[in-house]
Amino acid sequence: MRRVAVVGAGMTPFAEHFALGIKDLLPMAFADCAASVDKGFRLADLEAAWFGAMGTTDGFPAGVLADALGLPELPVTHIENSCATGNDAVRNALFAIASGAVDVALVIGADKLRETAQRDLLGEWESLNRDKTWDVQLGMFAPAGFALHVNRYLYESHATREHLAMVAVKNHRHGARNPKARLRFEITLEQAVSAPVVADPFGVYDCVPQSDGAAALILVAEDVVDRYTDRPVWVRGVGLGLDSVMYQHKRDMTSFPATVRAARRAFGMAGLRPSDIDVAEVHDFFTGIELMSYEDLGFADRFEARKLVETGATSVGGALPVNPSGGLKSKGHPPGATGVAQCVELFEQLRGHACNQVDGARVGLAHNLGGPTAVAAVTILEGPGR
Amino acid sequence: MRRVAVVGAGMTPFAEHFALGIKDLLPMAFADCAASVDKGFRLADLEAAWFGAMGTTDGFPAGVLADALGLPELPVTHIENSCATGNDAVRNALFAIASGAVDVALVIGADKLRETAQRDLLGEWESLNRDKTWDVQLGMFAPAGFALHVNRYLYESHATREHLAMVAVKNHRHGARNPKARLRFEITLEQAVSAPVVADPFGVYDCVPQSDGAAALILVAEDVVDRYTDRPVWVRGVGLGLDSVMYQHKRDMTSFPATVRAARRAFGMAGLRPSDIDVAEVHDFFTGIELMSYEDLGFADRFEARKLVETGATSVGGALPVNPSGGLKSKGHPPGATGVAQCVELFEQLRGHACNQVDGARVGLAHNLGGPTAVAAVTILEGPGR
Repeated sequence: MRRVAVVGAGMTPFAEHFALGIKDLLPMAFADCAASVDKGFRLADLEAAWFGAMGTTDGFPAGVLADALGLPELPVTHIENSCATGNDAVRNALFAIASGAVDVALVIGADKLRETAQRDLLGEWESLNRDKTWDVQLGMFAPAGFALHVNRYLYESHATREHLAMVAVKNHRHGARNPKARLRFEITLEQAVSAPVVADPFGVYDCVPQSDGAAALILVAEDVVDRYTDRPVWVRGVGLGLDSVMYQHKRDMTSFPATVRAARRAFGMAGLRPSDIDVAEVHDFFTGIELMSYEDLGFADRFEARKLVETGATSVGGALPVNPSGGLKSKGHPPGATGVAQCVELFEQLRGHACNQVDGARVGLAHNLGGPTAVAAVTILEGPGR
Repeated sequence: MRRVAVVGAGMTPFAEHFALGIKDLLPMAFADCAASVDKGFRLADLEAAWFGAMGTTDGFPAGVLADALGLPELPVTHIENSCATGNDAVRNALFAIASGAVDVALVIGADKLRETAQRDLLGEWESLNRDKTWDVQLGMFAPAGFALHVNRYLYESHATREHLAMVAVKNHRHGARNPKARLRFEITLEQAVSAPVVADPFGVYDCVPQSDGAAALILVAEDVVDRYTDRPVWVRGVGLGLDSVMYQHKRDMTSFPATVRAARRAFGMAGLRPSDIDVAEVHDFFTGIELMSYEDLGFADRFEARKLVETGATSVGGALPVNPSGGLKSKGHPPGATGVAQCVELFEQLRGHACNQVDGARVGLAHNLGGPTAVAAVTILEGPGR
């Protein structure tokens, strides 16, 4: 298998982009990405693209991307995999390059969630991301469904409501310094704990602000990497994992098998272990999900995740900083873009110029979980060393 | 690049499956596919899947497939590329296998168009497949948009309304003998020409019956092909091509650049020429599209496609039979399934047991066009020889 490197990465701010359409956001993210390529990048170098999006309200998704970039000849595959869309787009682009069929590919993710989600009222949008015949009818929308998991986790472990709040405080602190983040302010533990309840145990600061935005990566084959940079970030592993969609089929509410499977595949391909990870972007759709995912990703022993936030290990400055970008929690969450944006953050971390730089970061991990907990994708990147 | 073979292929009938959901159709197609594997196939052999669908009304698409097969561990990527979805799913699965990451993959396509299309009324569905800001507002739904192309083609070439009818008569004749086809009856040239007009120059017999259905392929790496069959069908080439979405950006209405680009890529990868093709499944969404595609695919010189239908060259028994399955025209068109079903037909043709067998067929081509004419996908298969 040919090795594949990321040679460029960029994104728009995540925000409520009332005045911008997806046809504006896509070229903005691409331009930011192309500008990061050390030796320059010409649009004409692109041989194929993978476009992650829940959908567009502008029309045919693959064509919207090609037209927005002014590249109507570009072969574009539109991938949708719920909240794991971004990292699954990375995975598919990697396969194409590794196979030898493509040398230079664009991975781009974008969503204008305001319009897409409201296209058919929220219920219809939600039904694309979970089981419609049972779960949606039972009111298992995202906060309610994830709250079931986290409540059970708090019951079975020694973690408390305060540990969730610590995740929120940490990610807000990181995000406050990220110019691309949507919620750029710090919060206190007391604010988080006393915030209005959305779905017990989640207060408003435990929940993600769904947003608009786009993010892009340029992936190339090892054979041509020298044309673009002397500091490539290598894609060491990719993994996709699924699990049953319906809540009545979940055997254990305190773990997400989709994540366990995706991580096992990504680590297996990379030949690395969780202890090799220096920095991670973890899918903190709700604060408790970040906490539980520490265990599924192998960063903490079962029911011990709370210790990582208690000790500050997952803060920037700690042993394994998680979500230095601010995470979904502070940065925002346009589902198609989120996984790609996680890799943008890791690209900057592994090249040493991130907004909340993790000293000496060499190996990074990006993780998505969605559908609602039926799919996960993990990408492991390794920097050039400095 | 590792070679990739199709070792199993199957499908449901295409029909209005009022009583069946997508969770019924998916396992039916898979069972038909698995039963065609000479040396047997175990569900547990599957390592990954690519699921082509416009969407589902049952919920999260990738998870719906995994659950419907009883394989919640299976990593599934959901691909949507308008009417080219099926053959683009084949292309992405091929990359994964060719890269060495996956040995055994499922490609499955399905749509319950009745529900999906009507989920948000037809306008919303149509807007996913074309440009919403301009073209949909101008009434450029599928028949109207394709009629613009075909009218101009009839004006510039010597082809007439009767040549469109000849395509309809041919495909109905083929489809009448295909037990999986939806419209299993023959029609006369006079019936076709005198049928009520849908959008000039298309009468009702020039138009496709959109349908429900599913189709499946098992793709494996050359290293493991012997486990499954001694008569593999090799995937020789895949190609995806795009073109501008909006009608005001089309430079020439008499050709589809997306098809030209997809075909060039697929033939280039295969190292084959159009004259090497023995049998083809061509995207006859409207009769005139089959005719025009003969030229874009390299089967006829410019404005000479009519001669292939006049002489019967593209009928079964002719030099280059096109749509021996009955095509979309007679078989039906659930978009996610269509391209996969074309490959199912070719698999049977190239192994010598199709319902309208083409004598000595060794190389086959499948072609999709959609979005509305902004994307095309081409797959070239080669049989084991007999």
